[in-house]
Amino acid sequence: MPEIRRDPIFDRWVIFSKERAARPYDFQEGAAPRPHGRCDFCEGHEAQTPPETFAVRESGSPANGPGWRVRVVPNKYPALRSGESAECHSHGLFSFMVGAGVHEVIIESPRHLVRLSELADEQLVEVFTVYRDRLAALRLDPRIRSGILFKNVGRDAGASLEHVHSQLVGLPLVPPAVQAACETSRDYYLRTGETIWSRLIAEEIAADIRVVQVTPGFLVICPFASRFSFETWILPRRPHARFDEIAPDELAELARLVQDVTQRIERAVEKSSYNLVFHTAPFDGNLAGHYQWHVEILPRIARTAGFEWGSGCFINSTLPEEAARTLRTAKP
Amino acid sequence: MPEIRRDPIFDRWVIFSKERAARPYDFQEGAAPRPHGRCDFCEGHEAQTPPETFAVRESGSPANGPGWRVRVVPNKYPALRSGESAECHSHGLFSFMVGAGVHEVIIESPRHLVRLSELADEQLVEVFTVYRDRLAALRLDPRIRSGILFKNVGRDAGASLEHVHSQLVGLPLVPPAVQAACETSRDYYLRTGETIWSRLIAEEIAADIRVVQVTPGFLVICPFASRFSFETWILPRRPHARFDEIAPDELAELARLVQDVTQRIERAVEKSSYNLVFHTAPFDGNLAGHYQWHVEILPRIARTAGFEWGSGCFINSTLPEEAARTLRTAKP
Repeated sequence: MPEIRRDPIFDRWVIFSKERAARPYDFQEGAAPRPHGRCDFCEGHEAQTPPETFAVRESGSPANGPGWRVRVVPNKYPALRSGESAECHSHGLFSFMVGAGVHEVIIESPRHLVRLSELADEQLVEVFTVYRDRLAALRLDPRIRSGILFKNVGRDAGASLEHVHSQLVGLPLVPPAVQAACETSRDYYLRTGETIWSRLIAEEIAADIRVVQVTPGFLVICPFASRFSFETWILPRRPHARFDEIAPDELAELARLVQDVTQRIERAVEKSSYNLVFHTAPFDGNLAGHYQWHVEILPRIARTAGFEWGSGCFINSTLPEEAARTLRTAKP
Repeated sequence: MPEIRRDPIFDRWVIFSKERAARPYDFQEGAAPRPHGRCDFCEGHEAQTPPETFAVRESGSPANGPGWRVRVVPNKYPALRSGESAECHSHGLFSFMVGAGVHEVIIESPRHLVRLSELADEQLVEVFTVYRDRLAALRLDPRIRSGILFKNVGRDAGASLEHVHSQLVGLPLVPPAVQAACETSRDYYLRTGETIWSRLIAEEIAADIRVVQVTPGFLVICPFASRFSFETWILPRRPHARFDEIAPDELAELARLVQDVTQRIERAVEKSSYNLVFHTAPFDGNLAGHYQWHVEILPRIARTAGFEWGSGCFINSTLPEEAARTLRTAKP
């Protein structure tokens, strides 16, 4: 069983999972990617994954066989496992809990595609609908206190398999960094009567130097303190804490916008690897109030090194104002 | 001029330096490393770096020519620049300051060696003496509030040049993560009357399951909540906040111990890339009191991905108890 441990001095939580070490890996140096016929995520290879939790399927097609368009399975090499309830124990300075939680893989095409940008429009919207619904399902589990939905694209972004997919982790805790951002959001609201997110959106639209796109529902910016070159955030203009309560028309707009933005990044950055992260409020109601769900796209060009791990600060060689200018003109 | 910006919601500081993008790079995929004759850090190529700030030299040898054993130069592609004083400005939600600070490179051998483990004993102790003295010099600069000394070894650890070297960054701020650890240390002391670091050392020695080595002056452990597989900390057993006040005999012991531990990691982990970070208290006296300087060695085997960047938590596939067992037997 995995275990979750807390560092008593640096307030960091670490999930220990031996099983992760056994993962297969598509990106061996010098090796060719696995062809369609050998990929466990391709249609026809359903027996290679754990039985599906959910799937969008042709009506009448049986579970765990072909006929699906989007398929959700438990991660075969999970960071966390569903099971007994997560109680926090401590022994002297050290706190730890059983690694109880959820770790799902969302397989986003039955074909061996490798980029979100390759998905047809209808497929794309179905994938985003699954994102929303799986997060909503996680919220119903009383042991789960927060959820992280993410996609790793390319070797430098930590992907192990290239077949287009995302991952959903349900944690039995609220990560300290998320908790701190929620508290900042709450404190700002109590002090000013408006949310810090609305203020951020208003200031960015007024300054108009870090804006990549403004659409009816969303603002796309390269944030003022981007950690990574070409870091891009997609913010809903109507503040809302929970991604899984997004309206269907907004969801379709978001799906197309994420595809558009990742295509721009692929044009601007050669061989781009990136992480895509959905931030949504923790499930505990009293903290979540003034947070805002949003999407962050984090291109992984430079490598984090001793300075970043030692200080928690970042060094970035591209100003967000320049990155936004490049992305504005890098039309898909 | 570089600029330092703060994210208003996530309390992160980012240094923006365009010049970093121009760095040469020894680790191009498929390319052979640069031979001795083409490396700017080798003896005889002193004109390829900015003029030296400090050097350990044969007596009588002129600055910026051959004859040195350890050489300190300003980074040619600096994250921060010395210059005007760092004042914090703000504009709406956004805080920023001029990127005033120090960014030095410590070149640790006139020969083209690539690992600390290749240094002869006398050279090694001289290098560590330079670490101490450069940090002490930084403390005298009233604009500098904290210093980070680090070494990146190997491509996966973010190194750009392979010639054995370290870097020293002097920041005009105290990073939030360092500030938080100092506050935790202070609060623990006020509550219990002992430092959290002494308590940690006592608990680790008593448990004796994450200990790699105990020497007269130091404890080497794989920490309870290791972020990385084979993460290793070297803790002085006599608590002290400032590395630059280390006694000469302790410094020599530390130098040999760091070399011993990196050799163990090189034996245990094939093609190991790692970051080595010296943590020392910020220079502001009132915060520093109950912190403890220490060395962290962070092997970079797995890549950080969307989960880590989205949650601030980590996933590690190696328990520190196992890592310590392996390192205990991986004698150099």
